[in-house]
Formats: sequence, C-alpha cells, structure tokens
Amino acid sequence: MSFEITKELTKNPKTKPDSSNLVFGKHFTDHMFIMDYETGKGWHSPRIVPYQPILLDPAAKVFHYGQTIFEGLKAFRKADGTVVTFRPNKNFERLNRSNERLSIPAIDEKLALEALRELLLIDQDWVPSEEGTSLYIRPFVIATESALGVNPSEKYMFMIIMSPVGSYYAEGINPVKIFVESKYVRAVRGGVGNAKTAGNYAASLKAQEEAHEQGYSQVLWLDGVHLKYIEEVGSMNIFFRIDGKVVTPALNGSILDGITRNSIIQLLKHWGWTVEERQISIDELVEAQKSDKLEEIFGTGTAAVISPVGEISYAGEKFTIRDGSTGELSAKLYDTLTGIQRGALEDPFGWVVEIK
Amino acid sequence: MSFEITKELTKNPKTKPDSSNLVFGKHFTDHMFIMDYETGKGWHSPRIVPYQPILLDPAAKVFHYGQTIFEGLKAFRKADGTVVTFRPNKNFERLNRSNERLSIPAIDEKLALEALRELLLIDQDWVPSEEGTSLYIRPFVIATESALGVNPSEKYMFMIIMSPVGSYYAEGINPVKIFVESKYVRAVRGGVGNAKTAGNYAASLKAQEEAHEQGYSQVLWLDGVHLKYIEEVGSMNIFFRIDGKVVTPALNGSILDGITRNSIIQLLKHWGWTVEERQISIDELVEAQKSDKLEEIFGTGTAAVISPVGEISYAGEKFTIRDGSTGELSAKLYDTLTGIQRGALEDPFGWVVEIK
Repeated sequence: MSFEITKELTKNPKTKPDSSNLVFGKHFTDHMFIMDYETGKGWHSPRIVPYQPILLDPAAKVFHYGQTIFEGLKAFRKADGTVVTFRPNKNFERLNRSNERLSIPAIDEKLALEALRELLLIDQDWVPSEEGTSLYIRPFVIATESALGVNPSEKYMFMIIMSPVGSYYAEGINPVKIFVESKYVRAVRGGVGNAKTAGNYAASLKAQEEAHEQGYSQVLWLDGVHLKYIEEVGSMNIFFRIDGKVVTPALNGSILDGITRNSIIQLLKHWGWTVEERQISIDELVEAQKSDKLEEIFGTGTAAVISPVGEISYAGEKFTIRDGSTGELSAKLYDTLTGIQRGALEDPFGWVVEIK
Repeated sequence: MSFEITKELTKNPKTKPDSSNLVFGKHFTDHMFIMDYETGKGWHSPRIVPYQPILLDPAAKVFHYGQTIFEGLKAFRKADGTVVTFRPNKNFERLNRSNERLSIPAIDEKLALEALRELLLIDQDWVPSEEGTSLYIRPFVIATESALGVNPSEKYMFMIIMSPVGSYYAEGINPVKIFVESKYVRAVRGGVGNAKTAGNYAASLKAQEEAHEQGYSQVLWLDGVHLKYIEEVGSMNIFFRIDGKVVTPALNGSILDGITRNSIIQLLKHWGWTVEERQISIDELVEAQKSDKLEEIFGTGTAAVISPVGEISYAGEKFTIRDGSTGELSAKLYDTLTGIQRGALEDPFGWVVEIK
C-alpha cells in the first residue's frame, strides 16, 4: 500500500502561546490530519489541512451512540533542537485494539505513523522546549454516519490534532490528593474499560466533580464487581511501593493498558526492582499504610508522566502518604523518563523516535 | 422566565420520503431546535433553524470524553389529522436526570416542551399518518467546549431533531430473536446504565454485532456484578409473562427507566394483572421455560413500542418461546398503546398531548 497524504498549508499561521505558561489542551497547532472511512471504500483521502472546525450532521452517530476512540502521546524537543516522539507505535497498536472493541474498522498503523511524522514536520515549530513542556498529540476516530439506529457506523473520520502543553495537574510534579471512590463505578470486566473510548471518561465526570468539591484532584477507582480491588486513577495507572517492592494492578480487561505504565515497569525491572502486577485490594493498601509499609504511591500516564500521591481518602478516613512529600522513587522515575524523552539521558530501550 | 424562541424558516423545503417505506432515523425534517450554554451565561439563544450540519472544533469534548445525553419520543397523527405526542414531560424529566448524572447543566423543562411544540407546529406536515409510522423526536445535548482536559465542559448545545419513521426492527411486530449475553457487560451499579448517554450504546455495539452474526436481532444484558440477573435488551426494557403474572426487572440504577416500560406497567395494572418489578435471574427464566410456565416475553421501548420475543439463546441452548408466535398479551398491549397514541382508543391516563 502506498500512502499519498495530500497537504494544504495554512495561509494564516496562528500566534503561538507563551510556552512558560501553557494550559493543558487549550491551544492547537496550525494543522491537523484527517482521513475518511466509508463502507465499501475503506479508509481513504488522508490529508493534512489547516486546523479548522469540522462540519457534521446533527444525527452523526458519535453524538448519540458514542462510537469513538482516542489516543494520547507526546512529542518533545531535545536540547539539540531535534523533535522526538515516545513509543508512538504502541499508541497506534492500542488505537486499533480500541477500534476492535468499539466495532470501528482498523487503521493502517504505518499510515498513521507516517501521517503523524508529516504533521509533526509541518508543525515542528510548535514543539516547545521549556522544561516540563511538550506537544500533546491526540489521534481520534469518530463515527460520522447520519442515522439514528444503534449499530456500527458506515462512515468515520480519523483525525490527529496537536496541542503544546505544560503540566497536566496544577500541582505539577508535586503530590496530588486522591479520593477512593466507593459509590460510582468506572468500568467492569466485560465492558469497555480497557478501550480508550469517550464513554469511560463521561462515566467518570460526576465522581471527579464530587471529589474536587472535597479538595481531591482525582478519583481512585475500585473494580466494578466487588468495589474492593484497585483499578486506576482518573487519567493514570497507579503504582504502590510497599515494603521494598512495587505493586500495580494487573491488566484485567477493565483498566487501561498504559504505555507509561508499561515503560515504568520496564524501567523498574531494569533497575532490579521487583514489580508485581496483580490484584491489590483497598484493604491491603490501608493495612500497608497502617503498618508503615506503604512507602510511596504514584500515578503514571502520558499527560501527567509521573504524579506522586500525597494523600488518599477512603471511607471517610484520610491517609497522608510519607507526610505528603514526593517519594524518591517517584522523583527518580520522573527524572529518568523525562530525561529519556528529552534526550538528556541514554535510551537503552529504543523508545524515542526522532522525527525527520 | 420568558422564552423567546427565534425562528428562521427554510427556503428550500426537502422532498418528504415515501411514508410507506420508511427506514428508522435516516431522513430528517426541514427544521431543528438549538440552544447554547456557556458557563456564566447559562442556557441561551433558543432558536429554530433549517436542519443543517453543525460546525464543531475537533477538540470539542463530546468527541473525546463523551459528555452527551439524549432522549427519544414520538409524535403521531390521529385519524382526524391532529398531531399528538406521548408523555413528553416524562422525557424531559429523564433528560434532566441524565444531565445530572453526566454533570451537564439542567435544562428548563417548560422551555424544552415549548421548543418541541413550536418545532412540531412548523414541521407538522412531516408527521406521517400510515399505520405503524410516526415522527421520531431526538432531543440531545453535546459538550462543545474545545479543551482536552477530562472535566465537565464549559459549553454545550441542546438540539432537537426529528425523523419520520416506520418500524424499528425489520421484523415489525413479528417476534424477534434475542441472545443472552454472558461475555460482554453493558453497565454496572454505580455506573451510568440508567442515564441515556452515548457510552452505554457504544459499549453495546460489539456484543450486538456478534449476536447479529448468529442471527439474533438484539442482546439481552445480564447484570455487571453477577452476570446472572436480567437487565434489559439493547434498546428496550424486557417483560416476562410467567404463570399468569408479569415480571420485569426492577429499576436498580443500571437499567433505563423506560417511559414505555412505565406505561405498560400502568396499563397492565389497570387491566388487573399482577406486575412484579424485581430481580429475575436468567436461571429462573430458563426454569420457567422448561416447566412450561413461561407464557410470553416482550420488549418495550419508544422506538419499537412492543416487540415480542420468539427465541432466546443462552449458554449455547436455544429456547423457542410459544413456538415463535406473538403472544396475545403482547399483541393486546401493542394494539392498546398504539391505539391510545394514535387516538383510536380512549386515553384514560392523560398520556397524549395535542400539539396546537
């Protein structure tokens, strides 16, 4: 298959936002990638065009039945000015796993990578260079057929948009407070919890809003069957350092197979840590905290990278983790991962892909 | 509060589709209703405009985080030409319950009813009169703020679009076959199963597609915790006539509080039937079938009205219900409900609202 991506460049480049004060996901670059799908024709007309609004029929299936999936990855600027991405092939593999679960036709991963490469080359000046900044990349697919029956769409759009970003949390690398949710449920086995699809996030808004009102940044979800086993945080996977080992919930079908999660596990094992991917109950966590064996908690995700957790609230009790300070392992992981991503440290795993 | 709904009428009325051969949700009327929301301004600018595509930023939250809800109701043409709707106030009450669950600001129900009335008056010629036809009405809300953080949107659009429709199922009032799903899960308590939100339907597509491949029209969902208790069918609530009584799953938070369901329960009680709203397990159902006590199964919903079930498949076994024929209670309920809706029968409950 040959990819011919047509390009239409903007005649009115935007003013770039101040990179020392970037808000997450509010500003978008000058261009975007689009490709259409129609039953019988397959995916076609890949193109890069000026960033612009899209025109959809009000009956487009995405509005009514949520047939949509997305990805999130980042591009970084190295000290020498080179632009790199981090394991982008993993994102497009996961995009197709999400597509499969949502009955959306698969996308050629090589074409998606090539589209991203060409888009990044065109908008390379948008990749910020300040410490802690990056270009957040959002590939997504939406069902665009105009028809109200509940069944898979006959038409889709695949798009890539990009946004220069700073920290995801207002706290930056400082510890966040999380609220263990025991009323609302995000996902259950047999559902779509391991797909990056809109409905999972919609289902999280109410709980997150209530947690915010109580001063917590994020919700820690428990499993949908027993409301007992730890799953993930709103937009991150979660890790616990307990008694010298690192424990993280196993990929059970209802949590996201995070690429940062996977990278952190590889890094930890590379350093000689024991990493257990297994069921971990909230009771085990509380017990570890009470017996002083809970050494650190941190979340991992593309948007937040590593986010130390300084306090958890569960069933009316508040637990302060290591006096609310950032753990040394969290800090080392953050420094190493961002160091690899930005080319300041060696990349022993071949994760970083130069865009040229 | 005074409602001033501005109106811009189309200069190019569309050709109406042939009412003897309507496909569900493919054709839309000449006009639609729109109202905008913005934090600080509230809901504003209610207007009726020609049916047309809408322009959205690719970063609009509905595409990424599925913050959207919808409703479905119908308008009918009585023999005397009058246009009526069926319990529309119930739909807008539920719309606001869905809004609440999805962290979407409430909509004034009186304004929504007035908007619907005015839209129906403008497009009244689109209400078909043939037996089995109606005008399907789809109110919905989408999050339109352009920002990639996972939190409730600061901007929304509320719209009403309308589509002349025939039967929802190709089978019409003839019995459908349903597949009892024991791998995929639609919803779980604590989730959004009782809200009419896109993600619930997105989560159902894969199971429905696999059921279709095996010759089944719909999936019968079991509860997310035990995979044991019956919840609902794809786009309907479900009723069982067992040993002279009618049983339907209780509203447990993970199933839809159907307006047709509610109306059927009222009708049945009015006729002197015992109706039990309770947990019913798939084992109880299989047992009732095997002991010849399962007299009828039917689904209820706005789109399908009453849909008799002729066959269910569970765990590799197929059960033919009353030799695959339509039950007398299903038929009587269908005739009565559609008779009330179309003015052929008396409306003892005050369900029908004339549009004038």
